[in-house]
Amino acid sequence: MHVGILGAGQLGRMLVLAGVPLGMRFRLYDRVADAPGGAVAPLVTGDFDDRRALARFARGLDVVTFDWENVPVDSTRRVAAFARVAPSPTALAVAQDRWAEKRLFSRLDIPAAPSARVDRMQDLERAARRIGLPGIVKTRRLGYDGKGQVVVRQTADLAVAWGRLQCQPSIYERMLRFRREVSLVAVRGRDGSTAFYPLAENAHRDGILSVSRAPYLSPSLQRLAEEHARRILRHLRYVGVLCVEFFVTRDGLVANEIAPRVHNSGHWTIEGAETSQFENHLRAIAGLPLGETRARGHCAMVNFVGRMPPRGELLSLPGVHLHDYCKAPRPGRKLGHATFVGRTRRERDLCADRLLRHATR
Amino acid sequence: MHVGILGAGQLGRMLVLAGVPLGMRFRLYDRVADAPGGAVAPLVTGDFDDRRALARFARGLDVVTFDWENVPVDSTRRVAAFARVAPSPTALAVAQDRWAEKRLFSRLDIPAAPSARVDRMQDLERAARRIGLPGIVKTRRLGYDGKGQVVVRQTADLAVAWGRLQCQPSIYERMLRFRREVSLVAVRGRDGSTAFYPLAENAHRDGILSVSRAPYLSPSLQRLAEEHARRILRHLRYVGVLCVEFFVTRDGLVANEIAPRVHNSGHWTIEGAETSQFENHLRAIAGLPLGETRARGHCAMVNFVGRMPPRGELLSLPGVHLHDYCKAPRPGRKLGHATFVGRTRRERDLCADRLLRHATR
Repeated sequence: MHVGILGAGQLGRMLVLAGVPLGMRFRLYDRVADAPGGAVAPLVTGDFDDRRALARFARGLDVVTFDWENVPVDSTRRVAAFARVAPSPTALAVAQDRWAEKRLFSRLDIPAAPSARVDRMQDLERAARRIGLPGIVKTRRLGYDGKGQVVVRQTADLAVAWGRLQCQPSIYERMLRFRREVSLVAVRGRDGSTAFYPLAENAHRDGILSVSRAPYLSPSLQRLAEEHARRILRHLRYVGVLCVEFFVTRDGLVANEIAPRVHNSGHWTIEGAETSQFENHLRAIAGLPLGETRARGHCAMVNFVGRMPPRGELLSLPGVHLHDYCKAPRPGRKLGHATFVGRTRRERDLCADRLLRHATR
Repeated sequence: MHVGILGAGQLGRMLVLAGVPLGMRFRLYDRVADAPGGAVAPLVTGDFDDRRALARFARGLDVVTFDWENVPVDSTRRVAAFARVAPSPTALAVAQDRWAEKRLFSRLDIPAAPSARVDRMQDLERAARRIGLPGIVKTRRLGYDGKGQVVVRQTADLAVAWGRLQCQPSIYERMLRFRREVSLVAVRGRDGSTAFYPLAENAHRDGILSVSRAPYLSPSLQRLAEEHARRILRHLRYVGVLCVEFFVTRDGLVANEIAPRVHNSGHWTIEGAETSQFENHLRAIAGLPLGETRARGHCAMVNFVGRMPPRGELLSLPGVHLHDYCKAPRPGRKLGHATFVGRTRRERDLCADRLLRHATR
């Protein structure tokens, strides 16, 4: 089985590391030659609109997937002339467009924050009046790690927000009061079988995921999240790993967004679950049986952003597992993560606190 | 940290997979271009006596290790002009020579089967008289997986055995009655710190390891095995993973042989232990703190020899992890293995039996 991955970032790298033991071979595609995945598999470089380079990449592959949700849908359609693409370009298209995502939630009866489509300043004013303040204006496309979003607290802020987002097609969304954010990593095989990981609880810092803790032990929320995710997977005839982010509010779970790929909040599964999200994504797209998703203990995953702590320090912490993406440091850039699997929640939280101190020093 | 590995077999491949998350880069050396490790790291090809190719391989590396115990000691000495070599060529030399190994055991007061050095037919006759029959004649060098050994039951067999081994320098060893074979994977860091995995119990088929089960729960044998291994590690000023194989006899533990590298009977540690033998070998040779060695449950590892069972069948067994080395099938060749980690010994043994049926079908 020869697998292609569009995007050779840390997610592509971790996919390769998970797939090699399954006997898979890989070929990667990225715009830059020093992408992290290039250390473990052959890498074709080119822009995502470079038809020739894409053809060179895709020819002879059995299946192509992506490690980046902003891969142009057109590129995946072009690649589909040479090899099966999973998840499908259609699923990718929905996840790339916040408004399409909102319509999907609404169509599938999945609770989400009230929202409206905003193409012009007038739409924004109307939306804020109808839905209420405070709210968030989010560009429909290319938002990630808190980018492409502006919080609006009063009517006077609307024009400023609209200007800051360069008048791009956007949505307006009511700002919810939530207690915490959780995410569900779900996977669907080619035969329609599904599996779900335990919910992870996520905390952010400057808009970037800082720590995930799993399992988030709430049987009722777990059941509800799985019901929602199952509807999305089925509706999109999805194949592969899909992550759904939820807010936990006073009124229950509210869907925030979906990511059509392996997800940072699922990195804990490498050491913390019976089968990692990376292996299960590959099993799914290769048409293999899905692996077990149960947690092996109480797990914490801490991101290193902008700066990697000294390796020796991290590895001297008992039970800590390091994942260094070998990327050049840059403020706000995810450079690596560490995982800890404890026997109790308390043990996990103590180690998470230590790792967070290393991460933010 | 740029790490070189002499030998790019499945052990080299698994070392790379374990080291990439630690932020290490790799360069491999092998005689053949299609060696399994070549899928995950750049590979320099050449014979082990090709000085130029060895220099091209070793230049600029921080540390060099090996994945094959029959790498010529001279090659490692040559490489040592360019980069630190760990384990040391001296340790490698001892492990390559059964007679040197026996002298080491004797010098360190580690019980071993009575044995004698055999350079000529007369030595063999004298040894058999002194030590008794039945016995095993083993070539001093290049024996593995039961190769280079002949069992001798009566005096008349001696000449036949000597002929079959082509009159090579050998040892004669009393054949012990043993209940089972166990192995200890030990690791020593550059700072002299040591760690030991739980003992594994090993069963062979046609001289080739078939299944390992760990932990082998005997606190007294564990303690004794660790004492023996600690003496060897200290004496050789060893750096890296060392495997010591023991027989469990009526009189206790008897050392059989050492392997100066990660070992097939330690493959269970990838899923079954907190830190894998591969990661700990790399931590050791890189001068990093050693990782925890405790077992995560009751683990079985089954080898696939000569033929890989269909991937889908294996992955449909709950909790089974596959390691396909992507080697061309050949009778007697190790092509892959599967691991299972159960909550109880019974659960593990049931799964081991199923895997063994797949392995031998």
